[in-house]
Amino acid sequence: MIKLPVQKVSTSVSTESIDILASEEPLEIRLEYGAADQRIQKTISITMRTPGNDKELAAGFLFTEGVIQSKNEIDDLPKKKDAGENVLIISIKPAVNFNLVKLERHFYTSSSCGVCGKTSIEAIKTVCRLPNIKNDVQYPASLIHQLPEKLRSNQMVFEQTGGLHASALFNKDGDLILIKEDVGRHNALDKLIGAAMLAGMLPLHDHILLLSGRISFELIQKAAMAGIKIVTAVGAPSSLAVETAASFDMTLIGFLRDKRFNIYSGAQRIVI
Amino acid sequence: MIKLPVQKVSTSVSTESIDILASEEPLEIRLEYGAADQRIQKTISITMRTPGNDKELAAGFLFTEGVIQSKNEIDDLPKKKDAGENVLIISIKPAVNFNLVKLERHFYTSSSCGVCGKTSIEAIKTVCRLPNIKNDVQYPASLIHQLPEKLRSNQMVFEQTGGLHASALFNKDGDLILIKEDVGRHNALDKLIGAAMLAGMLPLHDHILLLSGRISFELIQKAAMAGIKIVTAVGAPSSLAVETAASFDMTLIGFLRDKRFNIYSGAQRIVI
Repeated sequence: MIKLPVQKVSTSVSTESIDILASEEPLEIRLEYGAADQRIQKTISITMRTPGNDKELAAGFLFTEGVIQSKNEIDDLPKKKDAGENVLIISIKPAVNFNLVKLERHFYTSSSCGVCGKTSIEAIKTVCRLPNIKNDVQYPASLIHQLPEKLRSNQMVFEQTGGLHASALFNKDGDLILIKEDVGRHNALDKLIGAAMLAGMLPLHDHILLLSGRISFELIQKAAMAGIKIVTAVGAPSSLAVETAASFDMTLIGFLRDKRFNIYSGAQRIVI
Repeated sequence: MIKLPVQKVSTSVSTESIDILASEEPLEIRLEYGAADQRIQKTISITMRTPGNDKELAAGFLFTEGVIQSKNEIDDLPKKKDAGENVLIISIKPAVNFNLVKLERHFYTSSSCGVCGKTSIEAIKTVCRLPNIKNDVQYPASLIHQLPEKLRSNQMVFEQTGGLHASALFNKDGDLILIKEDVGRHNALDKLIGAAMLAGMLPLHDHILLLSGRISFELIQKAAMAGIKIVTAVGAPSSLAVETAASFDMTLIGFLRDKRFNIYSGAQRIVI
């Protein structure tokens, strides 16, 4: 959060004031990889993010993009933040067989939409190594109704700035486990999944994800990478988000607010 | 817009219905460039977008990313959409000196945040070739207050789906000139700027931009590339959006709704 001067204008009055804004700064994620005696550094992403949970963001980004498969492939974080406040260096263990050519092609063609490892549109759904999760849990509708209020009461910054997206993770009993915020909705989810990965929680089995805004394809894809089978959101899904959730056997709930919600796929998991 | 079945759940009732969702599909943008006898094709971006205005989106993307400087560098659009519904090939004229190495470096490091041509965080603000626009117009607050209603009455899809971002361009008298929608806010703005470029309107001098959501750094940077000096939005700006707008001598207005707004920079252009 940053405090900045603002001029507040209503129909006929203007007053000087101080506004609290969501902080947005670039984060450069660099990979260090290669044999122990031949380490190489390469910038693989610059993302505009809200500072905080940078190591979770970087770890989650690398995981949901398919660059790493587990936290065991990276050295302890954040060993190396000596390159500056907005640079994070992730060190891939020398023993890990790391294919940079594939990575470069990946980022060259896909980073603008964040989908995993595709090199053509046709490949979007096929190249992601999704965990094979079975989730037969049944969730009462009353439990789903309660999630937004649990998110709101814990989402402090949004209340103050109106400028942050939130991602929240609940267990199957509806207890809030993790909440992350960011100016970018994909970053909020990467921070959440990164935190879960670093805590050894992946893949997620019967957890419920709640998103504060709308649901894009990208968010469904990232959730699927983490094994999540039930995604709920306060906002609307896109058509492709619905189609993708259905093809991944996920339950997708949108417009979750005011004691109402819409089920777009996987209705068998919801007990009304 | 796509119609899909949905199960609408309230506290105790569940009904089957049909929901109208914002359409989201990948668009692959390929560049064709090089000498007339040695044409090369290369995929430079895959973005998740709402179909429609694809040529404006591609043209605006290339312009706001600094890949092209004017519509004169590209052949008539969309000559080549024979590669599929979701592939658009933009042909750079053979006479244009086109530096692919710079382009590759550009996309490799910057496409995840969409800022122009930077190869490091320090360069973000310095490498963009911004047009040198002077805008001394004074805009009455009453004119600003009216913009959201003008946007709403023209933003048909959002009203139906709740799932689209809009960008609208007004002239200095507050008349709506252009409106574009997309699931991605950066795409909505690229479509708008691309349409303006293809219509020969760039750089924009005294026009007003209205964004339906929040204001990120990326949107300010894209607006600046088009010469826009006054940006208004229904939602909150980020801290970096405010700082960037101030450094570009732009007027930035947020929370424009209910006959109120906040001025974060460039207050001298607003008459209260």
